Amino acid sequence: MRELRAADLEDIAAGAAVLGTGGGGDPYIGKLLARVAIERHGPVRLIALDELDDGAWLVTCGAMGAPTIVLEKVPSGEEMLMALRHYEAVTGRRVEAIMPFEAGGLNSCLPIVLAAQTGLPLVDADGMGRAFPQLEMETFHVYGVPAAPVAMADEKGNLAMVETADAAKAEFMARGICIRMGGQASLVNYPMDGATAKRVSVPATMSLAQGIGQVLRRARAEKAEPLAALIDFLKTTHYGHAECLGSGKITDIERKVENGWSVGIVTIAPFDGGEAYAIRIQNENLVMERGAQVLAVVPDLICVLDSDTAEAIPTERLRYGQRVDVLGVRVPPIMRSAEALAVFGPAAFGLGASYRPLGGG
Amino acid sequence: MRELRAADLEDIAAGAAVLGTGGGGDPYIGKLLARVAIERHGPVRLIALDELDDGAWLVTCGAMGAPTIVLEKVPSGEEMLMALRHYEAVTGRRVEAIMPFEAGGLNSCLPIVLAAQTGLPLVDADGMGRAFPQLEMETFHVYGVPAAPVAMADEKGNLAMVETADAAKAEFMARGICIRMGGQASLVNYPMDGATAKRVSVPATMSLAQGIGQVLRRARAEKAEPLAALIDFLKTTHYGHAECLGSGKITDIERKVENGWSVGIVTIAPFDGGEAYAIRIQNENLVMERGAQVLAVVPDLICVLDSDTAEAIPTERLRYGQRVDVLGVRVPPIMRSAEALAVFGPAAFGLGASYRPLGGG
Repeated sequence: MRELRAADLEDIAAGAAVLGTGGGGDPYIGKLLARVAIERHGPVRLIALDELDDGAWLVTCGAMGAPTIVLEKVPSGEEMLMALRHYEAVTGRRVEAIMPFEAGGLNSCLPIVLAAQTGLPLVDADGMGRAFPQLEMETFHVYGVPAAPVAMADEKGNLAMVETADAAKAEFMARGICIRMGGQASLVNYPMDGATAKRVSVPATMSLAQGIGQVLRRARAEKAEPLAALIDFLKTTHYGHAECLGSGKITDIERKVENGWSVGIVTIAPFDGGEAYAIRIQNENLVMERGAQVLAVVPDLICVLDSDTAEAIPTERLRYGQRVDVLGVRVPPIMRSAEALAVFGPAAFGLGASYRPLGGG
Repeated sequence: MRELRAADLEDIAAGAAVLGTGGGGDPYIGKLLARVAIERHGPVRLIALDELDDGAWLVTCGAMGAPTIVLEKVPSGEEMLMALRHYEAVTGRRVEAIMPFEAGGLNSCLPIVLAAQTGLPLVDADGMGRAFPQLEMETFHVYGVPAAPVAMADEKGNLAMVETADAAKAEFMARGICIRMGGQASLVNYPMDGATAKRVSVPATMSLAQGIGQVLRRARAEKAEPLAALIDFLKTTHYGHAECLGSGKITDIERKVENGWSVGIVTIAPFDGGEAYAIRIQNENLVMERGAQVLAVVPDLICVLDSDTAEAIPTERLRYGQRVDVLGVRVPPIMRSAEALAVFGPAAFGLGASYRPLGGG
């Protein structure tokens, strides 16, 4: 167990932006909400998976919706708590710990808000090891935990609950509700006990986010190369491999909100003058191609970083003319099994590419 | 209290089709489900509003969705019971009586199914006095009863729950869920006590449906004019006025499913050779016009009946070439107050026409 304090939030948010792979919502807003919550309620207890009691009842939590919408429809900071209380009221079960369902973007910080508000321990793990655009794209689901009940709340206090045996149906129904809540909602889902959480979660991803943030901050302070430092650091983690996939200038962005997601394509003209890179987006960056060549594809992380600072740029902040490096990160083994790839590999997104782990398996 | 038996269902379904004003879902399917339920569980206790204990806790129930979809996605007959049990599980309240939220179409018969399955008394009343396409279009809402919690179920056992203070938001969110349940869902809503039900409900509408069915059946058996008999009968009820708005042959039907509703326009060429009638539909028949003249408009009932049999034709069964009479029925006073017209008068449907009760106020 260690305490998360307001001073930790900068690094966590910066790292979460990298793990967000373009999505997960802008961590800036989550960081502000987490700071206010910690200042008001005190520090948050962050516990490792193996510190969790096998019998402890936990829920996972986060926001769903199009990240572009979060910029205009700002969370109140109370909706996650409302979703949790709704879950408890409906099921009659008391929640003893919470875990992020997603390690990226806004969704690394919002669980900190909830942990501060409730005083519950926050489990240092998640079910995506990054950000993904759909609720069933969770190691929890891959390894047999039902997504439902899904308790949902919006910033106006509207509540909803979905019960279904099928994780994809839970996603489909919750997405419909999310759209009617204005395109952005907070939710609590995948209830499970501690023993299950240890089996099905991607470990230590809050610490990973914080580590990424620290490495970037220190490299900048030391006038070192932040991207190189980040790649070196990631090789020491259970992710195990990272590389620069390409560098260039953004020359085109197609972007729209479709079925409740931000979708689009970003074109990057490489500094080496060769064929342009194309990154396909569904909230997150899904695949990076150069002509017919697939440079990286889900579930591996594709992170667009500012060339100067190595700061991650979420898709909704991509602009024409930005100079960027694209970082590729291999996911840990729990996310590369055949069962996992069936749920969040290329085919699950309708992509024709086949998955080959960056850096080899 | 009187018992509803399988032998009563023909008349109720025939009358419910008239009160459905084109919508509410085809009562044929509801009738079959009600017959099976009564044969399996025994007759249903139908109680008048004033037989209800003031302290009894009741919920209203029915199906929502596009009637056109019910023809292909047939209810299992269990979904209303699942919605009720979901309501009870979530709220911890035991339900002691049930009431239809809508007097028309499928939604007169489905509450009979639920009453047979549960053994609960069925209250002879509803909140629309007819069918309307939206959940907030209820006298319950008009007179201050919250629509939520709304418990929903589909035929596959998927469940959902909406909690919101605003009836229109409850409709909007439940409609989104309904669409994701395949365009048709069963639900339980407007929980209230008996004293409230007496104040806010349209009384005796199950008996009214049965009375309409009886009058039509007897008139046919006696080779009398069923439409004339029906008009005479309706004048003796608390609706108080009915008339034939026009007769002719259907020459055009525009129909599509939009935002979860069946919407369209029916054109009827009158037998007198004059200008055509146009009826505008949103699940139900909303307004009947002849050129610039408004012949009838919501909340008054506009019912398209077969010219030979006076059988009501739901909008999804309208066909080119059908010969029809159009019946107009004035709604009872509880549905004509200024508050009621604000919720389900012409403006609530975006219609420019102003409401003038058929037959005068």
